[in-house]
Amino acid sequence: MFGTIQSYFRLRYGRDKAYYRMLKTIFGLRPNNIELYKLALIHRSASLFLDDGAPINNERLEFLGDAVIESIVSDFLFIEFPEADEGFLSRLRSRIVRRSSLNRLAIEIGLDRYVIAQGGNGFAQKHLYGDTLEAMMGAVYLDKGYDFSNRLFINGILRKYVDLDDMSEQETDFKSRLIEWSQKNRKRLQFDSAPSASYTAKSPHFRTTVLVDGRPSGDGEGDSKKESEQRACQEAIRRLERLGESVLSEAAGGSDGE
Amino acid sequence: MFGTIQSYFRLRYGRDKAYYRMLKTIFGLRPNNIELYKLALIHRSASLFLDDGAPINNERLEFLGDAVIESIVSDFLFIEFPEADEGFLSRLRSRIVRRSSLNRLAIEIGLDRYVIAQGGNGFAQKHLYGDTLEAMMGAVYLDKGYDFSNRLFINGILRKYVDLDDMSEQETDFKSRLIEWSQKNRKRLQFDSAPSASYTAKSPHFRTTVLVDGRPSGDGEGDSKKESEQRACQEAIRRLERLGESVLSEAAGGSDGE
Repeated sequence: MFGTIQSYFRLRYGRDKAYYRMLKTIFGLRPNNIELYKLALIHRSASLFLDDGAPINNERLEFLGDAVIESIVSDFLFIEFPEADEGFLSRLRSRIVRRSSLNRLAIEIGLDRYVIAQGGNGFAQKHLYGDTLEAMMGAVYLDKGYDFSNRLFINGILRKYVDLDDMSEQETDFKSRLIEWSQKNRKRLQFDSAPSASYTAKSPHFRTTVLVDGRPSGDGEGDSKKESEQRACQEAIRRLERLGESVLSEAAGGSDGE
Repeated sequence: MFGTIQSYFRLRYGRDKAYYRMLKTIFGLRPNNIELYKLALIHRSASLFLDDGAPINNERLEFLGDAVIESIVSDFLFIEFPEADEGFLSRLRSRIVRRSSLNRLAIEIGLDRYVIAQGGNGFAQKHLYGDTLEAMMGAVYLDKGYDFSNRLFINGILRKYVDLDDMSEQETDFKSRLIEWSQKNRKRLQFDSAPSASYTAKSPHFRTTVLVDGRPSGDGEGDSKKESEQRACQEAIRRLERLGESVLSEAAGGSDGE
């Protein structure tokens, strides 16, 4: 009898010890309520069931964590890009918080090894690890509060594993965006670039006009051809969006299946 | 000269005093940084412009506040409905945070009187006050932190002006949801209800079968006819959603134009 109890406790303690270690390693945190984090690891496919048939899994925590992450990332981008307009911030945020991106993050921090799920490669499994990361952040939020979650996600995950410079560059690469859009919508693009009248070898200056289906749609100037092209494309995009085309948001949404 | 300076200061002080008073009255808060709140009131249509042409308005704060409100409301619903599944929580959240609902809230708390905007009844103006409420919550978040914003929004606004019982009842009124869906999708609904075999006057028991286009689609039992109908409809909805119909989310999304 005593042996049974003892081995029960050893088993339980042993189990929990692994959770404590994982939380320490991956998130650098020491939980107050370990049960929250255990729950966060249980994917729908591995649900436990209460007597009344209600399933126990991480979906409620995922609902919460998803919103918490979005708020944390919004705060971060707001401060990090003081000059950026709301459209840029929204597109960058959607790049960071989309499921495929969170899924990649979850794998990079090593969370994938701890997820409790039943096999199968169906649609539900597609962003399994990203969903778990969201649920985990829901657990951190409930256990440790918002400010702790904020520091953890930004310093422990985002700054380490997300190349923000690259992302924001992609986001402001208006030429690529415009080309993507034109291919998708079967439009013909042309770029007319030339040194402008004020051009000298010492202070070069370029002008570009971008034509969509032969129609001049944006002008730009700059110290290099590249810069003038980017500005011309930016103007063209602005005009196209005013006409109801969604050039930038289409690109940001991606073909991510979300 | 002295008079000019004096009246300038009086004007400025007078202006800020009005902001302080408004924040005290509407949000019960005493700001650390009043400028944030002033900015939150400036709608895009009334933008100021920097020398480089960059507009100054509340859109960045709105981007932030929108996410903060969503996180706060998610937390609240998570705690308030410990038994609810993630689908219910999501639908209830979307009812609360949608622009038309925030717009109504902004008017109820009296924020509409302070919004700085240029006239016009275009689309941009549609949720003007709701957008401002979001921006205001963004300002509160930056000025006072998340926990303060949380208490303010839940206790000062949500609990006072949102009828959660009514909302959650609408959300769990499966019969109404199913009827709405059937009208929208031109399906014929029938309800077959009868006392079940175990029926006695003392412990009445009912069974309902709901038929969609003549086909039995859900069964339910209950102590009243109404209860059995609700359960039958819930089962029918679950089946329809598994077949790819979005019965509940369509209803939650509403024809809100979002």
